[in-house]
Amino acid sequence: MIEPRTLKGFRDHLPAQALARERILDVARQVYRSYGFVPIDTPALEYLEILTGKGSEETDKQLYRFKDHGGRDVGMRFDLTVPFARFAAQHLHELGLPFKRYHMATVWRGENTQRGRYREFMQCDFDTIGTTSPAADLEMVLVVHDLLRAIGIEKFTIRVNDRRLLAGLLESLGLADRSTDVLRSLDKLGKLDAAGVVRELVAHGVAADAAEKLLAAASLAGCPASALEQIAPSVAASERGRAGLEAIRAIVAGSREAGIADGRIVVDPSIARGLDYYTGLVLETFLDELPTLGSVCSGGRYDNLAGLYTREPLPGVGASLGLDRLLAGLEELGRLSTRETPAEIFLVHFDAAHLGDYLRIASALRAAGLPVEFFPEPRKLGQQLKLAAKRGHRIAIVAGSEEFSKGTVQLKDLAAQTATSVDWHGDVAVLVDAVRSKLEVIRGGYSR
Amino acid sequence: MIEPRTLKGFRDHLPAQALARERILDVARQVYRSYGFVPIDTPALEYLEILTGKGSEETDKQLYRFKDHGGRDVGMRFDLTVPFARFAAQHLHELGLPFKRYHMATVWRGENTQRGRYREFMQCDFDTIGTTSPAADLEMVLVVHDLLRAIGIEKFTIRVNDRRLLAGLLESLGLADRSTDVLRSLDKLGKLDAAGVVRELVAHGVAADAAEKLLAAASLAGCPASALEQIAPSVAASERGRAGLEAIRAIVAGSREAGIADGRIVVDPSIARGLDYYTGLVLETFLDELPTLGSVCSGGRYDNLAGLYTREPLPGVGASLGLDRLLAGLEELGRLSTRETPAEIFLVHFDAAHLGDYLRIASALRAAGLPVEFFPEPRKLGQQLKLAAKRGHRIAIVAGSEEFSKGTVQLKDLAAQTATSVDWHGDVAVLVDAVRSKLEVIRGGYSR
Repeated sequence: MIEPRTLKGFRDHLPAQALARERILDVARQVYRSYGFVPIDTPALEYLEILTGKGSEETDKQLYRFKDHGGRDVGMRFDLTVPFARFAAQHLHELGLPFKRYHMATVWRGENTQRGRYREFMQCDFDTIGTTSPAADLEMVLVVHDLLRAIGIEKFTIRVNDRRLLAGLLESLGLADRSTDVLRSLDKLGKLDAAGVVRELVAHGVAADAAEKLLAAASLAGCPASALEQIAPSVAASERGRAGLEAIRAIVAGSREAGIADGRIVVDPSIARGLDYYTGLVLETFLDELPTLGSVCSGGRYDNLAGLYTREPLPGVGASLGLDRLLAGLEELGRLSTRETPAEIFLVHFDAAHLGDYLRIASALRAAGLPVEFFPEPRKLGQQLKLAAKRGHRIAIVAGSEEFSKGTVQLKDLAAQTATSVDWHGDVAVLVDAVRSKLEVIRGGYSR
Repeated sequence: MIEPRTLKGFRDHLPAQALARERILDVARQVYRSYGFVPIDTPALEYLEILTGKGSEETDKQLYRFKDHGGRDVGMRFDLTVPFARFAAQHLHELGLPFKRYHMATVWRGENTQRGRYREFMQCDFDTIGTTSPAADLEMVLVVHDLLRAIGIEKFTIRVNDRRLLAGLLESLGLADRSTDVLRSLDKLGKLDAAGVVRELVAHGVAADAAEKLLAAASLAGCPASALEQIAPSVAASERGRAGLEAIRAIVAGSREAGIADGRIVVDPSIARGLDYYTGLVLETFLDELPTLGSVCSGGRYDNLAGLYTREPLPGVGASLGLDRLLAGLEELGRLSTRETPAEIFLVHFDAAHLGDYLRIASALRAAGLPVEFFPEPRKLGQQLKLAAKRGHRIAIVAGSEEFSKGTVQLKDLAAQTATSVDWHGDVAVLVDAVRSKLEVIRGGYSR
């Protein structure tokens, strides 16, 4: 016997969890498509040289790499951005620019699992490349907004910033050459308190008063108009700072024109996103009910996607839904369904002699768009109903010889444990209508 | 510069191809769900011992295997059946039996690419385990039938057989101990002609008259009733043969009761499916217009899924859609859309000063369920329209200062190159209705 087990950091998705994932992925696909983003896919394995040296030392170390059957050095993708860069450079002329793609796929990182991280997870990226238009930046914010709402979340905040705003501030404080250190330290706000971040900045050699000013600016998050008003004087002397300010103003104004409710977009000068390659817009998205969960959807603008693979400059803007973190949040909020089946209807296999009748009923329900589980074998009624209730089916249809001869069935509400009798006289259309009506009543009684 | 390229045997999916794949996967998901099958997922990487020795010597050789960061021997899954066996054994008590799952995911095999095979491809499996009920076997046939029709294929044939029927025939010919050789040879029918298969059987030591009788039986494919009638006498002496005959009769009768049109199910005693583990029903599915394409959906019944991982016997029945082969077939038939976008509507970015108006129009269309691509930057009209037509958008909405001041827009049919003017007077609901009506007219004119 071989012990059935999964590798450390890897996991199976059981039906309830797999259904919840499929639902979110489906919603994301619909929203991305509604903005004209198109799907692409790339291989899980790439030449190692495509993958190494693109993320950080850490991602290089975490790479799953090996020699394939032809002796080639290969690696498993650790994100979807590097493969997209390779893809864009390779197919540029077929694609045309600007090009807007979404890509939802699995990535692998040999992370330290003690930090509660998984070594296999999904990313759900969307990017617009080949344009520096502010309309593309704004669209990112609109997609994130529509995505969260389509998933069924109403209490969320999209925090936006522009890296040039911070750069302008650094310039005016004479810290222009220290931006990487400073951004990394500011990114720790939330993990460290303000005093801790100031201490870290000072430890990096930033003057104490400059550190305090940085922290004051970074703590301005709030109502867009007032945050922008307060930060404007500090960056007025810097051309980049003014450009950043103008860009954020356009995001705020455009969001309003597109109908986003006030308060959902917050300007937060502390949002830096640790990654060095962001050069303009940066955004993070938080669930208001779970402030410590972290961002569930993040991204920003970069100057050049694929400089390592092509001389064609490919500026772009993109973001990514953190599927696993979002699911963890929804679970914590008690907003994940525990149903283990997509079929609301369970057709009891009561009497094998009536197989033909059951098939006719099941076919009619399916043709009417109603998924139905017809139990595979004629087990005891109680056993079948117990399993049906446990798995989250909503209605059981029960009929044996007696019911078929009378032209009736029993419809059982599996949660409420109540039953009603339906006279259908062998007319499946009547039965389908009765089942549909009962389902509507039951669904109305659930919070979904 | 690093050359942007994919590994041999691996490929990118560009938008038109990725859209076609997503459509088929979505249809498969809907059909599987309509029968109550539930999704699961398992890791791409497994302990090597889970994967080796499960398929054949060939799959062992083709395995992508390596040592992970913890020095563990790991492998990438080469199919979805072995991971399902491990999964079922591991989670048996949470799942309950019978258990019906679907799993659509990528698998990897280091195949010889000279045979036109890919090293990365998707499988779309569905299985019912934990029951020997004939109703579960019948359900496989019904799912395959509904799946092909839902994909939009009407001309197809599901060829069914029962391994016990062949076993019965072999028993009556005194060849019971030669079944593996014989089944492998019979499986070559189609690649070899009848005489070639007879020669191969004789070369394996089968008497010439027995080989002829086998071929005669294997060539009985056709109308179920007559094929069964003709083969019945040859297996009457064998208990297994009679059981196989009865099982196939039940499949044929049940398919008819579930409403499958005559002629779609064919009994074909030559279908053996090379794999040793099938013990009852075997099925293959062919597109009538492409007889040489091979089966696009195949499967069968097995006695025990997970004997290597658990002492609990797990008999089952399953099948798998061959996504890549089906797509190749649809392409050959000219039935794959070449559209590169899911958005039928293209909103021209004509005048950056009217960004707010464009956003309002786009939001209203999306809220009405109409995906719309708003071009990211205000390029020349001709450039935008050319790209829109090339990518397969159907309608372009064109409006600049003049149109906005008059409360009109131009709606362009991008394929027909015609335009109409719509008076909407700033009322987006009027505009949405006009766009929807125009789309309906245009869609009606396409063969889809």
